[in-house]
Amino acid sequence: MNHKIIEWQNNRLRVLDQRLLPRETTYREFTDYHQVIDAIQSLVIRGAPLIGLAAVCGLALEAQQQAEASAERFVDALYTAAEELRACRPTAIHLAWAIDRILPLVDECATKTGGERIKRMIQATNQLRDEQVEIDQAISKAGAPLLAAGDYVLTHCNAGALATGGEGTVLAIVKGAIAGGRRVSVVICETRPMFQGARLTAWECEESYIPYTLITDSMAAHFMKVGRINAVIVGADRIAANGDVANKVGTYGLATLAKAHRIPFYVAAPAATVDLDAKSGADIPIEEREGDEITLVMGRAMVAPERARVWNPAFDITPAALVTAYITERGIISAKGLRLLLATEAKLKPHRLSPVELRKKRQTTATPFDPDAAATVRLVRRTAAEAAAKAGSLTPAKQAAHEAAGEAMERVLDKRRQKALAGLGVAEEEGEGEEVLIAEDEPQTPPAKKAPPQKKAAAKNVAAAKPTAKKGGKK
Amino acid sequence: MNHKIIEWQNNRLRVLDQRLLPRETTYREFTDYHQVIDAIQSLVIRGAPLIGLAAVCGLALEAQQQAEASAERFVDALYTAAEELRACRPTAIHLAWAIDRILPLVDECATKTGGERIKRMIQATNQLRDEQVEIDQAISKAGAPLLAAGDYVLTHCNAGALATGGEGTVLAIVKGAIAGGRRVSVVICETRPMFQGARLTAWECEESYIPYTLITDSMAAHFMKVGRINAVIVGADRIAANGDVANKVGTYGLATLAKAHRIPFYVAAPAATVDLDAKSGADIPIEEREGDEITLVMGRAMVAPERARVWNPAFDITPAALVTAYITERGIISAKGLRLLLATEAKLKPHRLSPVELRKKRQTTATPFDPDAAATVRLVRRTAAEAAAKAGSLTPAKQAAHEAAGEAMERVLDKRRQKALAGLGVAEEEGEGEEVLIAEDEPQTPPAKKAPPQKKAAAKNVAAAKPTAKKGGKK
Repeated sequence: MNHKIIEWQNNRLRVLDQRLLPRETTYREFTDYHQVIDAIQSLVIRGAPLIGLAAVCGLALEAQQQAEASAERFVDALYTAAEELRACRPTAIHLAWAIDRILPLVDECATKTGGERIKRMIQATNQLRDEQVEIDQAISKAGAPLLAAGDYVLTHCNAGALATGGEGTVLAIVKGAIAGGRRVSVVICETRPMFQGARLTAWECEESYIPYTLITDSMAAHFMKVGRINAVIVGADRIAANGDVANKVGTYGLATLAKAHRIPFYVAAPAATVDLDAKSGADIPIEEREGDEITLVMGRAMVAPERARVWNPAFDITPAALVTAYITERGIISAKGLRLLLATEAKLKPHRLSPVELRKKRQTTATPFDPDAAATVRLVRRTAAEAAAKAGSLTPAKQAAHEAAGEAMERVLDKRRQKALAGLGVAEEEGEGEEVLIAEDEPQTPPAKKAPPQKKAAAKNVAAAKPTAKKGGKK
Repeated sequence: MNHKIIEWQNNRLRVLDQRLLPRETTYREFTDYHQVIDAIQSLVIRGAPLIGLAAVCGLALEAQQQAEASAERFVDALYTAAEELRACRPTAIHLAWAIDRILPLVDECATKTGGERIKRMIQATNQLRDEQVEIDQAISKAGAPLLAAGDYVLTHCNAGALATGGEGTVLAIVKGAIAGGRRVSVVICETRPMFQGARLTAWECEESYIPYTLITDSMAAHFMKVGRINAVIVGADRIAANGDVANKVGTYGLATLAKAHRIPFYVAAPAATVDLDAKSGADIPIEEREGDEITLVMGRAMVAPERARVWNPAFDITPAALVTAYITERGIISAKGLRLLLATEAKLKPHRLSPVELRKKRQTTATPFDPDAAATVRLVRRTAAEAAAKAGSLTPAKQAAHEAAGEAMERVLDKRRQKALAGLGVAEEEGEGEEVLIAEDEPQTPPAKKAPPQKKAAAKNVAAAKPTAKKGGKK
């Protein structure tokens, strides 16, 4: 990305206004966290990981405003700002996740001088951004082997650098495949109502010389039927503990259509996207936005009667059963593997607390923010073997508790998932440790290498079998 | 419809410019068939039956221009115009169908005086429009019993008065149900890229006091999953002999999603939409339109990079296997019934000839255009019993020939269709005559009366069974 998406400039927060892309590359400067909230709500800044990063930058702005305040006043002001920032959009988990990560630092800074407060808070935001770059690179490395030369990858909304502030998730995977010498092309769903696909993903593809073709959301099924789509990869705003995915509205339809056409459907997202507090998609709040996003296109073209009644949910829920696999910085993981890995990790770190709980307990539970990236990088580079060993270290009772909630569902889903994975040449085996199917550190394992050719062969067999749904209309 | 959509005014053709709705109700006046071709190609006039009507009006304009020409010159000029009009858009069959109907009149008019030529040609266009009104009313009467009180009907594009020049197909069915005292609401897919749903269907609903809600095309799957959609009804631009449907792009996706959610999917269209020369959807040409329809919304809002590569097919093909039933002026018909009925009719009338063939044979095969609506009305009112008797009159050899092409497919499809129809309380029986399931003249037959409550019961059972695809994400 040749353009800075979010950066500090003379202690002001400078962000690219994504509403105006691709026509204009205009920047906005903020000095106050209320401006950041406005920017997040009006989509100047969007994309789940990026709004998390922007929110902590908002906290850093408030730290500047409160640089000379008393310790008590400093903490009060920043926790108030944190609660407002956390609530400014409801669906993406990254707002809460990023704020929870930085709150211990707020406590720590309370006892520091004004200059130190500002320096440390800004350092922490830069740290978060650098981590995102590492995570995006790991996702790219994990996902790229799934794509074969000549593949057309359908994507929805924008899961590129503009969405993460790093290198992107879906687009980083495509870039990884292209860097590996395989010509991969992106088919972009324009993504109504806000055209994040047409405006942002198409623009990023041009900036990065990724071949792409733009279609309307309504054309995806047609191009799946005529054999133009080899894989669907989308991002995620929140993933429930059972693997259900909240993402830009339209994702669920694409997942259903992908299943009907036996096309693999992947979700590429940082592991932090998983919210263990959401048991299933039913626990994820779906934001309903203003109707004029639909009726008044880009604030310019009125495309419906003025009093038109509109439903405008910004997200939808894709059940885990429709997800072939999740591409994370830990590797490629099935829904079951995702749940186990995260449950393991939850055991290893203190349970996430609400800001109110945190305020009460901050004297006892707060741990210093780690300014060194090494720990995170080590986490990212954790191998499948390590994950397995950690999963094995759970007591049988804890393990049973983790399992109980999801077990009934798993039995139903397992067959379906095995079938989907079989198409990729990836065998799913019993045993919790093996759930991390292709670990980020094991690019030489046979499944990862075999996947593309076997997938191709499977696709051919499907075509030869001529499923009923394709009959007649195929051309 | 309070607004005239197409009419003659002082021998000029006056049409409502559908590109400007709902912002403006502006009319265009034409005196030359080339203007009509431009209007059809630029979507001033759209909708399959309406462009057929507009095309014959274009021929009437040419008849005016050639009023004083010699018989030979008159026929030459009108056949040339007919060929251009027939080819101006490729997908909808109504252009060819309407022109083929009027060409015998052209031959007849050649020997008449100038005044008589003009009068007869304009009379014929009015006749065609009046027939469409009758057909639309019959479709409404046939389809309305399928809708129960409280139903939400999802539709795509525009299949209202603006599409037929009469009373519409899908919207006439909804109006029929409402007139029957059942509150039915329409959920309108906005229909990218040209927003026929948001601009035209929403506008028609407001004009007719039909309750509606507008959504983006990408939201249909979500609202199916959460149980907001009880039926999908769309129009058609052409139906192949095997029942495959060409309609506005996005239709195939909706049909696939409807199947995944066990929601009935109906196609409402005049029987003339069936093209017996197209064996399957693969024989129907799909129009590819300019990319700027997608990138430059309504000519006002640029939503993609300027050099964006775009795919823009205007239509897609829905396989017959996904269609629960066809709602025509002859009643509600299964795919098999549709094929038999039309094959029977094809035997009863001369085979359709190309304009060139017609020109060669016009001395021997031309039959006078029937200015009396009675014959058509009788056809519309044909009962199931009559259709059965006519089907039975085919010789065994002819019958075998009609059957051969579709038989293998039928075996595969029959089970699926029976299952779908069972949900409506409509039993599909063996025997060709019975294929017309609910005849337009038999509103008192038990199936038509039982349909809505049984459908409701079936829907409840489906909900109780909790299909896997709904799991988790349901809310």
